[in-house]
Amino acid sequence: MKLTWKYFGLELIHTFTIARGSEVIDPCIIVELEHDGVIGYGEAAPTGRYGETKDTVIDFLKSVNLAPFKDPFLSEDILACVDALAPGNTSAKTAVDLALHDWIGKKLGVPLWKLWGLDKEKTPFTSFTIGIDKLEVIEQKVREAEIYPILKVKVGVPNDEEIIKTIRKITDKVIRVDANEGWTWKEMARDKILWLEEQGVEFIEQPLPASDLDGTAWLREQVHMPVLADENAIRLHDLPRLHGVFDGINIKLMKCTGLREALRMIHTAKAMDMKIMLGCMIESSVAISAAAQLSPLVDYADLDGNILIRNDPFVGVKVAGGKLMLNDEPGLGVKRMSEISNR
Amino acid sequence: MKLTWKYFGLELIHTFTIARGSEVIDPCIIVELEHDGVIGYGEAAPTGRYGETKDTVIDFLKSVNLAPFKDPFLSEDILACVDALAPGNTSAKTAVDLALHDWIGKKLGVPLWKLWGLDKEKTPFTSFTIGIDKLEVIEQKVREAEIYPILKVKVGVPNDEEIIKTIRKITDKVIRVDANEGWTWKEMARDKILWLEEQGVEFIEQPLPASDLDGTAWLREQVHMPVLADENAIRLHDLPRLHGVFDGINIKLMKCTGLREALRMIHTAKAMDMKIMLGCMIESSVAISAAAQLSPLVDYADLDGNILIRNDPFVGVKVAGGKLMLNDEPGLGVKRMSEISNR
Repeated sequence: MKLTWKYFGLELIHTFTIARGSEVIDPCIIVELEHDGVIGYGEAAPTGRYGETKDTVIDFLKSVNLAPFKDPFLSEDILACVDALAPGNTSAKTAVDLALHDWIGKKLGVPLWKLWGLDKEKTPFTSFTIGIDKLEVIEQKVREAEIYPILKVKVGVPNDEEIIKTIRKITDKVIRVDANEGWTWKEMARDKILWLEEQGVEFIEQPLPASDLDGTAWLREQVHMPVLADENAIRLHDLPRLHGVFDGINIKLMKCTGLREALRMIHTAKAMDMKIMLGCMIESSVAISAAAQLSPLVDYADLDGNILIRNDPFVGVKVAGGKLMLNDEPGLGVKRMSEISNR
Repeated sequence: MKLTWKYFGLELIHTFTIARGSEVIDPCIIVELEHDGVIGYGEAAPTGRYGETKDTVIDFLKSVNLAPFKDPFLSEDILACVDALAPGNTSAKTAVDLALHDWIGKKLGVPLWKLWGLDKEKTPFTSFTIGIDKLEVIEQKVREAEIYPILKVKVGVPNDEEIIKTIRKITDKVIRVDANEGWTWKEMARDKILWLEEQGVEFIEQPLPASDLDGTAWLREQVHMPVLADENAIRLHDLPRLHGVFDGINIKLMKCTGLREALRMIHTAKAMDMKIMLGCMIESSVAISAAAQLSPLVDYADLDGNILIRNDPFVGVKVAGGKLMLNDEPGLGVKRMSEISNR
């Protein structure tokens, strides 16, 4: 098995601001796993919130040694070995996981949704994310998002009520709200959420810092809309302690180390009767298509990372009227748009 | 898709007694799912503890309508539909689940262990079960089980200390103990378990009735050996409430509706850091081989149901020196020994 990688800068259509900061170009590392004449693609989209950069991903990938393993079908052992190399580095681990899954699907000649027994027609609609911005830019973004029936709005800033009001002036479509840990006191979060309920918001993601589980449990009792965990739901072992604290979780491949762990998290969340959302970072069509393969299993999708960039190096899952459209290609169902240049 | 079934009486080598009763012939229903020139095998092994008989299985299978589904790859939807037909009927549902999985593996030309990314060398050793019997018969059974390095001993009867002493006179091999809900007071269970600890027993399964979760939580604090759930761990949704009450679970295909739910339970138990055992009923090599396909994922195996019968209609997983030996055949890896006769 031969593992190679290339850095690629994803150019954002709009400068993207959430409660933590702003970005214009987002890094991604595209991985190729070659074995037995078949190439599997993977992707790492590192984010500072989880301590990763372009350089940490490349250093981690350099440390991966696949020589002890006969072929990618030994994915359980390979991924356990990769996971044990170092803590964290979740997006780098995801890159390997995706490449293994893509390889396996291509080798067997079936898309992953079929390998997992899913119906490709049962994909959810994806929300389209509106980042924090000047009100006139938000207005423009909402108008540009006309074809998407669900908006995910980033809040957690002092003027978040103004942001919601601006959007509600233009549209009455479904709004989901993500505070990204931006509200620091539970009473303030409660007041914000009770106000958001009057604005017809469907659910709230990560209102309080991940460290404040007690506050979140209290908050959940004070409000009516579902409260979903994002920064609190990184990996499988985080889930048992969220039972009774959150109503659901946002699974992101780049947080959880990939499709294998995501599937484990989906099963565990279902055991606890929690809602499941599949989310993303700014990612190319490689990682977005990977998440979309799982999407018939979940309640909500927020898989718009590839829609927010102007130079996607791959094509894969499409979006039609907001609905994720899986194809019949094997593995992740992605194809390279052109040669990826080193930058 | 065409689903057909035949009853088969599994003849026990020894009359088998546990805390609830005795059996000489055990019923099993072998299912065939035919589609696109490929046949998938499944099996139901109904048990009275879960309200099933040969007749309830056949009635349930008659109610299954696969006409709305294009092919067995739609297993998620098919199994959700089968599950929704009626509550319970778990072994009948398992028969359909196994047949779908066998078909998919055969269609893709890969064994299930490979489809799940597992290493077939990483199977555990299976324990060999010693039922409740006269002491001289127990002695004989233990001598016959010489090649098995682990014994699972059925207790939960007034003379269970005598049974353990009889076995310990002959051998010092690993003993695991299953009380099958046979101890009715928690204090009595505590005293029994503390004594079993002195006898070098590895763990105890289901000491108290499934209805007594509070008693079990108390009991777990009083003893040192792991306490595993069997009758308390039927299906996926049972698991969250076992967190902190048991140290592990015994997953049986016939209780949980099959491989798909078993995989969900394995993932959920791992999230809760619980130990996992794969167990069985008296079953032919169809169902035992199915469970064995999952076994590289678990801590303990008790997959001897086909070893306890004299007329196994199939061959599949083998046991060598107690270790489960998976083969490279596609799907469940089973082949019919001869034509199955109606009885």
